Amino acid sequence: MEKLKFDANGLITAVVQDDAGGGVLMVAWMNAKAIRLTQETGEAHFWSRSREEIWRKGSTSGNVMKVVKLLVDCDQDCMILKVTVDAGQCHVGYQSCFYRKVLTDVGDKMAFISKPVYDPDEVYKK
Amino acid sequence: MEKLKFDANGLITAVVQDDAGGGVLMVAWMNAKAIRLTQETGEAHFWSRSREEIWRKGSTSGNVMKVVKLLVDCDQDCMILKVTVDAGQCHVGYQSCFYRKVLTDVGDKMAFISKPVYDPDEVYKK
Repeated sequence: MEKLKFDANGLITAVVQDDAGGGVLMVAWMNAKAIRLTQETGEAHFWSRSREEIWRKGSTSGNVMKVVKLLVDCDQDCMILKVTVDAGQCHVGYQSCFYRKVLTDVGDKMAFISKPVYDPDEVYKK
Repeated sequence: MEKLKFDANGLITAVVQDDAGGGVLMVAWMNAKAIRLTQETGEAHFWSRSREEIWRKGSTSGNVMKVVKLLVDCDQDCMILKVTVDAGQCHVGYQSCFYRKVLTDVGDKMAFISKPVYDPDEVYKK
């Protein structure tokens, strides 16, 4: 993927979108190795900035993301992973990490716009 | 927006999604001021990392983005702007910046998956 523009940390922004419904599920980061592993396996791999390691989505939860398509934006510093998924992509129990909206009329308060689809305590054995 | 986690440069990733069709149009960056201006005006404002200035999308092209909803992700370091748009959001003439896909079976080659919707030379008077 030599044509991609990685940032100073060797990362590129990756938006994960449900290929069927079009919902944005999460945003994560990929380095060259994560992209290569994703291409080789057909399963989404990312770079965890907090853990500083390659992260195969679903290794713990079982909610692996099968990558249907990789899209690249105009300036080549961002990708979309179009994926097929089962239930529960977000680690706190929602299908999408974007389960809240900002209530702009009351400052920075947020409102829930989705309901959980699984119990993360069960999945992650906290 | 005190609850948001800005990065070391005071920025947060912003995914722009067509509220009607669900297509991801672009990914950009916002600082606190860009978010405030977006909330106050209802039009998408970003921080341009290359020009180092606030950027009202559509000031030149006329393709302003009306923000319907602001979503926040689980760890609060990313937002989705659900917007209503007219034709031609990408500066090179496409409706979405993601107009190419990676042909994984032939390395890093890309294929066009969309057709231009306007002539950027006309709009930007290059």
